[in-house]
Amino acid sequence: MAGSGEFDFIRSRLSPLSRGAAGAAHLRDDGAVLALGPGERLAVTADVLVEGRHFPIAEAPDLAARKALRVNLSDLAAMGARPFAYTTSVIWPKSGFESRALGFVEGLRVDQDTFAVRLIGGDTVVADAPWSIAITAFGRLPLTSSLRRANAQCGDVLVVTGTIGDAGLGLKAARGEYTPDMVEDSVFLSNRFQLPEPRIEEGVKARSLAHAAIDISDGLLSETRHLAIESGLCARIELDRLPLSHAAKRWLVRQADPDQGLMDLAASGDDYELLFAVPADAADKLIAALSSLDVQASVIGHMTGRRTTQPVT
Amino acid sequence: MAGSGEFDFIRSRLSPLSRGAAGAAHLRDDGAVLALGPGERLAVTADVLVEGRHFPIAEAPDLAARKALRVNLSDLAAMGARPFAYTTSVIWPKSGFESRALGFVEGLRVDQDTFAVRLIGGDTVVADAPWSIAITAFGRLPLTSSLRRANAQCGDVLVVTGTIGDAGLGLKAARGEYTPDMVEDSVFLSNRFQLPEPRIEEGVKARSLAHAAIDISDGLLSETRHLAIESGLCARIELDRLPLSHAAKRWLVRQADPDQGLMDLAASGDDYELLFAVPADAADKLIAALSSLDVQASVIGHMTGRRTTQPVT
Repeated sequence: MAGSGEFDFIRSRLSPLSRGAAGAAHLRDDGAVLALGPGERLAVTADVLVEGRHFPIAEAPDLAARKALRVNLSDLAAMGARPFAYTTSVIWPKSGFESRALGFVEGLRVDQDTFAVRLIGGDTVVADAPWSIAITAFGRLPLTSSLRRANAQCGDVLVVTGTIGDAGLGLKAARGEYTPDMVEDSVFLSNRFQLPEPRIEEGVKARSLAHAAIDISDGLLSETRHLAIESGLCARIELDRLPLSHAAKRWLVRQADPDQGLMDLAASGDDYELLFAVPADAADKLIAALSSLDVQASVIGHMTGRRTTQPVT
Repeated sequence: MAGSGEFDFIRSRLSPLSRGAAGAAHLRDDGAVLALGPGERLAVTADVLVEGRHFPIAEAPDLAARKALRVNLSDLAAMGARPFAYTTSVIWPKSGFESRALGFVEGLRVDQDTFAVRLIGGDTVVADAPWSIAITAFGRLPLTSSLRRANAQCGDVLVVTGTIGDAGLGLKAARGEYTPDMVEDSVFLSNRFQLPEPRIEEGVKARSLAHAAIDISDGLLSETRHLAIESGLCARIELDRLPLSHAAKRWLVRQADPDQGLMDLAASGDDYELLFAVPADAADKLIAALSSLDVQASVIGHMTGRRTTQPVT
């Protein structure tokens, strides 16, 4: 699908991103060839980010590229898979290629090294359209285990990594709807929105302990609801156990209605933390395992066997 | 990334397209899990189609969906891979979802059955953007063989499937730049443009016979050039051997300059035929094998070891 200028771009700029990926043929073929080791399966996920919808218009191109890659890696993390490769199909706006292309490549290059993944293919076209980055990402899974949304059991404890609501506050700040008192809060919250941290090692650790997992892209409440529905159960979240960053706590004390504030944080998206449903007798072990990765993990509720009147059902 | 209306669409409309794909989890998970048989490898390709660029504005949505799937299957065919699954990430224009969604699903449903592939995941978002369909497609390959662009050898014969230039004439007709004399030519050419035929069985047959292959998306001349460059060789095309349909022949006789007409046909894109570089002593065997599939195959040139002044170098 690529035009001739796009071929040059692929050859000179994208091809180096495939270095070390044996089956990628330097991105010069119709596609890539992947092999799996004995006892391995392949985890596949796809997410597209559109400028003005999933990241701000005029966002730094390297940050947009890194976010596009990271939200896909986050999906693999929720499956307990270890990422190793991805394809990207990019639509560049007319006359928007020059200003974005190098930053895009640089962003991918940085995060490829951070997360040990390689570009193995894709497509690039110019159109009268907003910038969009579609990524399909690939991870390895052992034959015997993977995390799935639908496997939560009645009585499972809900454990969440990190802190909740920061990315939503970062978005509010970017929109000028909220100005943190402290500069470090501005930086922290904006970073949480722009550059989510895929919880890859956390997912790998959890796959032998947890029954189910989901990554929090649409907000904790919404994702808990998905996990519950897919598992045919209900879930109860205790909002007063919501793990909050110092920045989020400082935002919360400024709210006239703190309960509503907590709800807002629990409903806001883009945190890309992982939510696990884990057997009650394995919760401490999971929390300790995550702690060994220097990751805070918090019990925030549990799965129930019947519908309730809780906010999340 | 999907909003709530999009979740309903995934659940009610897209999920049935994953039926029979064991690892797809009814599209209700963060991703799919694929297993390979012993001695199998996975072929992966990605192509994005944008309305107004790769298919006409206001194209029937089922045709757009089928073309998007088929151009990806064509890439797998050029690798000699047998397709079995795909993901699709769709950007719907604002207020353009209702008019396209059902046709899109119906188009995929029809072609899934035709080509024995299943939807295993993807993403769907609404944005202020033209309709775009990004597909990543997956095929199975034996451990021992695959077709690659870069493997052509000096002296290889170039063999092409089907006829060349029809899709380009179909595009001309759609744009009103050419009106065929006969109604059946209009139908035939327009069909060739709208609904390319991925040469899957042809690719599978050829993988033990040919050295290299490429699918003709950007025109025979351009793709021959890619094959030659990637193989470090030159190629010579004999334009008077270009296989033409009756419709293309009728177009050609109306041209003031028939040589230029042949060049135009050889340069026009979207045919999605396969071009093979095959050892001279295996060319007849390949042509016979393709003939057993009721597919016309024609010798149209050969690979040379040095640069020449031929049109394709």
